[in-house]
Amino acid sequence: MESAIRRIQQISNSFILQTNNVSNIDPQFIEAQNSFNPQALYRFLFPYEPELRSRLAEVWKTDKLLLKDSFGLSLEGEREQSFIQFKRLMEVLRQNFSLYDLERNPRKLAVFTQSYRFVNISVTTLIGVHFSLFGASILFLGSNEQREKYIKKIETLEVVGCFSLTELGHGSNVQQIETIAEYDHNTQEFIINSPTITSQKYFIGGAAKNASHTIIMAQLKVAGKMEGVHAFVARIRNEDGSVVKGIRISDCGVKMGLNGVDNGRLMFDCLRLPRENLLSRFGGVNKAGIYSSPINPANKRFAQTIGALVLGRYLIAIGSVAFNSVGLTTALRYSFSRKQFSGSDPKQEKQLISYSSHRKRLLPHLANTYAIHFSNNYLLDLLCEKEKKDKEIHILASALKAYGSWSSRDCLQECREACGGQGFLSENLIGNFKSETEIYTTFEGDNILLYQQVAKFVLSESRKNPPPEYEAPSDSIKQKTDSQFLRSFEFLQNALNARFAQSVAYVTEKLSESVAEGKPIMDSWNDNSPFIVKLGQVYTEKIILRKFIEGISGYSDEKAQAALQLLVSLYTLNIIEKDPWFLKYGYISSEQAEAITVQVLEICKELVPHCISLTDALGFDNETLGPIANDWISKNKF
Amino acid sequence: MESAIRRIQQISNSFILQTNNVSNIDPQFIEAQNSFNPQALYRFLFPYEPELRSRLAEVWKTDKLLLKDSFGLSLEGEREQSFIQFKRLMEVLRQNFSLYDLERNPRKLAVFTQSYRFVNISVTTLIGVHFSLFGASILFLGSNEQREKYIKKIETLEVVGCFSLTELGHGSNVQQIETIAEYDHNTQEFIINSPTITSQKYFIGGAAKNASHTIIMAQLKVAGKMEGVHAFVARIRNEDGSVVKGIRISDCGVKMGLNGVDNGRLMFDCLRLPRENLLSRFGGVNKAGIYSSPINPANKRFAQTIGALVLGRYLIAIGSVAFNSVGLTTALRYSFSRKQFSGSDPKQEKQLISYSSHRKRLLPHLANTYAIHFSNNYLLDLLCEKEKKDKEIHILASALKAYGSWSSRDCLQECREACGGQGFLSENLIGNFKSETEIYTTFEGDNILLYQQVAKFVLSESRKNPPPEYEAPSDSIKQKTDSQFLRSFEFLQNALNARFAQSVAYVTEKLSESVAEGKPIMDSWNDNSPFIVKLGQVYTEKIILRKFIEGISGYSDEKAQAALQLLVSLYTLNIIEKDPWFLKYGYISSEQAEAITVQVLEICKELVPHCISLTDALGFDNETLGPIANDWISKNKF
Repeated sequence: MESAIRRIQQISNSFILQTNNVSNIDPQFIEAQNSFNPQALYRFLFPYEPELRSRLAEVWKTDKLLLKDSFGLSLEGEREQSFIQFKRLMEVLRQNFSLYDLERNPRKLAVFTQSYRFVNISVTTLIGVHFSLFGASILFLGSNEQREKYIKKIETLEVVGCFSLTELGHGSNVQQIETIAEYDHNTQEFIINSPTITSQKYFIGGAAKNASHTIIMAQLKVAGKMEGVHAFVARIRNEDGSVVKGIRISDCGVKMGLNGVDNGRLMFDCLRLPRENLLSRFGGVNKAGIYSSPINPANKRFAQTIGALVLGRYLIAIGSVAFNSVGLTTALRYSFSRKQFSGSDPKQEKQLISYSSHRKRLLPHLANTYAIHFSNNYLLDLLCEKEKKDKEIHILASALKAYGSWSSRDCLQECREACGGQGFLSENLIGNFKSETEIYTTFEGDNILLYQQVAKFVLSESRKNPPPEYEAPSDSIKQKTDSQFLRSFEFLQNALNARFAQSVAYVTEKLSESVAEGKPIMDSWNDNSPFIVKLGQVYTEKIILRKFIEGISGYSDEKAQAALQLLVSLYTLNIIEKDPWFLKYGYISSEQAEAITVQVLEICKELVPHCISLTDALGFDNETLGPIANDWISKNKF
Repeated sequence: MESAIRRIQQISNSFILQTNNVSNIDPQFIEAQNSFNPQALYRFLFPYEPELRSRLAEVWKTDKLLLKDSFGLSLEGEREQSFIQFKRLMEVLRQNFSLYDLERNPRKLAVFTQSYRFVNISVTTLIGVHFSLFGASILFLGSNEQREKYIKKIETLEVVGCFSLTELGHGSNVQQIETIAEYDHNTQEFIINSPTITSQKYFIGGAAKNASHTIIMAQLKVAGKMEGVHAFVARIRNEDGSVVKGIRISDCGVKMGLNGVDNGRLMFDCLRLPRENLLSRFGGVNKAGIYSSPINPANKRFAQTIGALVLGRYLIAIGSVAFNSVGLTTALRYSFSRKQFSGSDPKQEKQLISYSSHRKRLLPHLANTYAIHFSNNYLLDLLCEKEKKDKEIHILASALKAYGSWSSRDCLQECREACGGQGFLSENLIGNFKSETEIYTTFEGDNILLYQQVAKFVLSESRKNPPPEYEAPSDSIKQKTDSQFLRSFEFLQNALNARFAQSVAYVTEKLSESVAEGKPIMDSWNDNSPFIVKLGQVYTEKIILRKFIEGISGYSDEKAQAALQLLVSLYTLNIIEKDPWFLKYGYISSEQAEAITVQVLEICKELVPHCISLTDALGFDNETLGPIANDWISKNKF
């Protein structure tokens, strides 16, 4: 990562040298050269595992195979190349991680996701399926013997795994999956069956072509009794690549993205698995044919089983920041080097960043990205604690997964549009990332459902520990419209806390009313789900703001600190400006609303000199970005 | 198009027959069978050119070549297939349209776009470039001789055209393009040159592989004097496919969508064109080497020249409704046949449409889609008038292009997420449409700029005809929270009119203040561009509501009329609920804001029985939709 100053000079020089209708440097350029040092901020933002980071950075720079994009390949071609890259990437992983690190040091996988620089996102998804779903199942759900038996093979790819949970009929409500695993005590085997069309395992990444093994999630039946969803490990392809007897496999076909991932469908016809293939950490069948589990009742056991998959959500939250970083670094750099239209002098075209509307479309996303990053760091801390706070981890991972993936969806879209047609070209990565990553909004837990889980937790916590009753500020406070007040962390935090407190009370009352009218609780919940989803978001934003403020407090560089504080204010004022709640409940006055709109534009303007440093500090350098983030004019010479 | 009743029975039957964990029909299903007749509404929505519609529908049903999708093909494969389909589609066009219809009967092209049913959107873009850009340029900018010379050949594909306006350095500010056409009186030729790297023609659809000819937009220089941007027609490839001397062509490469379109880059090195290749309707050079034009000054001429391209915007607005229709028909049908989670009885899973949050994510988009459709119809009427109101057409086309393309972007995204992983599969079309059509937000005029054009028009009109001064309603009106009042067209129209009036005054004041402070007008404009863009949107929504209300008034079926009225209310209340403006300026009280939130949910619920009829009336039948809009369970049998 070179310095922001050199970067800007390079961009502006190339522009001056190579076009003859532009000759001036706008004041922003010059100011930007006085911004802070992005490398130092980078080290502050990503303080852990510095050596691993440099080692990986070296690989990303030099490994030609990993650097290949998959643009314009056919389905078959893309799958083939992605699988080859997957195997190479597993070699890199093996040299730097062990599957046990998922348990011992989750930061390592964060480093991997944060610094990932390939243009082919399918490869990370293949890794995710094999390592963080199949592998994590063995690690977290398997007995010590099962770990012993599989983990080495997973690392060396002797076993290539996939993960069969989702069915055609059940993607979200996976507790109701239909696949059955009935224990046959005579042979000490489980017999796996797909009783209906809707029970077929669906959208299973890796199943259509590559996987040798799978985890099968199925309803366990022992001695006529249903014991709930359990995980089994099964071979699905023989050494020669043929499909194992008792399994049928079909292809899900082409998707709008991630076509390097071979998603498949599986049906089981009396597939017989030995007794020891049930992953037995949370429940197993002994030699006598008796089922027992350390966790009861069954739905608690189910929660624990599915809880092992929390890593997937955490990786999506981490990934969101990385994707946003690439999009924003690209779009902001382009906005400094791309000129269009003019100010008072029609011959002097102005940089896109000079336009107020252009700043307003991009910079709030930069603030969001930083905000999410600090919460991700906090989640990482929780994951690394010896005594894990499972509930808090689960809720925070769900909240950040939903918030992060929606943030990426919107941020990448805005970056695409802000770069016009250039954003649509694959080589500039933004459009490509957009198609490849928007599935994150619904996979590993649909965002709408995740926010409901968050809200459920919040409501239950609030019954134990009610938040302070909502009170609108006094009239004298509502007359304060000066920038110092509106940008102050006190005002910002109070605002999000107040909205949270009122939302909790509001939803609680709505639910009570509905139940009092005689509605079953589930129907009451459903009738009010839009408010409940909103509560999930409101809670998430409150937490994110707190962690953002805590997160930046430790950084002493004065200029960078000032820029980070601007981001905190922008993050929150942007929320306040957009959500009618603050006016509806009299939290702010109309005059304050007006002043906030002005402040948002002001802050965007004040951030201009720091844009390049702030995006550089996110860690994606020239080589990891497309042409429009670099000298795109020379690149287009022909 | 079969009846809604049969459709619903089919969907529900298939579900009941083929899964064994679902046995009940939710009340909505039964109610839905009592909805109105969608065919009759279809005929009301699309009253023009019924014979052409049926003829095209027949082609779409039977033509195997046109029905082929391009999923999973390589770049080369997709381009090749798309070009073959383009040629076949041009045959169909030739049998039903003439290029002259763009002038004589623009409704015909609307019919084509509205009923379009291929899965390969690149093909329509190829048609758009050849027919509505290259062809329209000849038609609207060419002299009678030039029309005579080219139009037949365009129709028969003896000439395959592309359109070279955009340059690497100028996409939006095309008045400043750098390509030069200097007249050489000695040889009676224009010499075309690309003086810089940034002057290369960029993103030119059809240029990389297929086009034989292009329109070149260039700065005309005659006898040392610059005369502004003019259009030239030029051959770019010889009969044998080799590139004409004086032109270099390069490939733009892979994009995030529309890869059937071969976008290319062109540079001109002293390309010589005969004098008669300047399209001379709005300005030409005579034999004596003298330039003359019926339109002066040059920027008025430029506006007229570019104005000829208004058809592209109108087609995008029409297309937006069609894409939304496919997305919504699919997502809503799926929401009736897909069950997940349960109400009070955990064994009885409920249809997605039963969930309040699911309805709220989809149905406002249905309201938007209908709303836009009626304004599109109005624009069509304007385009078909003998005495064309050019200014009104230009503004409305810009407004609807921006509004429609952003609506599609958001609607398709919501439909994709509402269908989960199924929405990501190409066969279900939504995800694919999303990637292929989101470029419409920035091409044919960046939306942010289009809204600024709309606002500029609005401000200038308002100087002549000021809207009534904004006044907040009386306290007694602001106490009305009953549904009848809030849903009344009077309340709804007054609300959007008031917001418009205030926004005009607000922007006017902001600009005056800034100018009074001594800022140049362009800088004042830029500083306030976020408010100006918003004004463009606010004006557009006001017009759309008016045309929506006018549009439905003529339909007499009582049930359908009631459903359409619900859509009008939903369209507007959704706007009011989301925009803090209404609270900020005291247009509604907090109590009304709360009541509106409740009304939005209520209306969504009341619309459930009409969902299927309302989407069927948009004209996309079973065969034009993917598996999840039909019997997706049988489809997945294997």
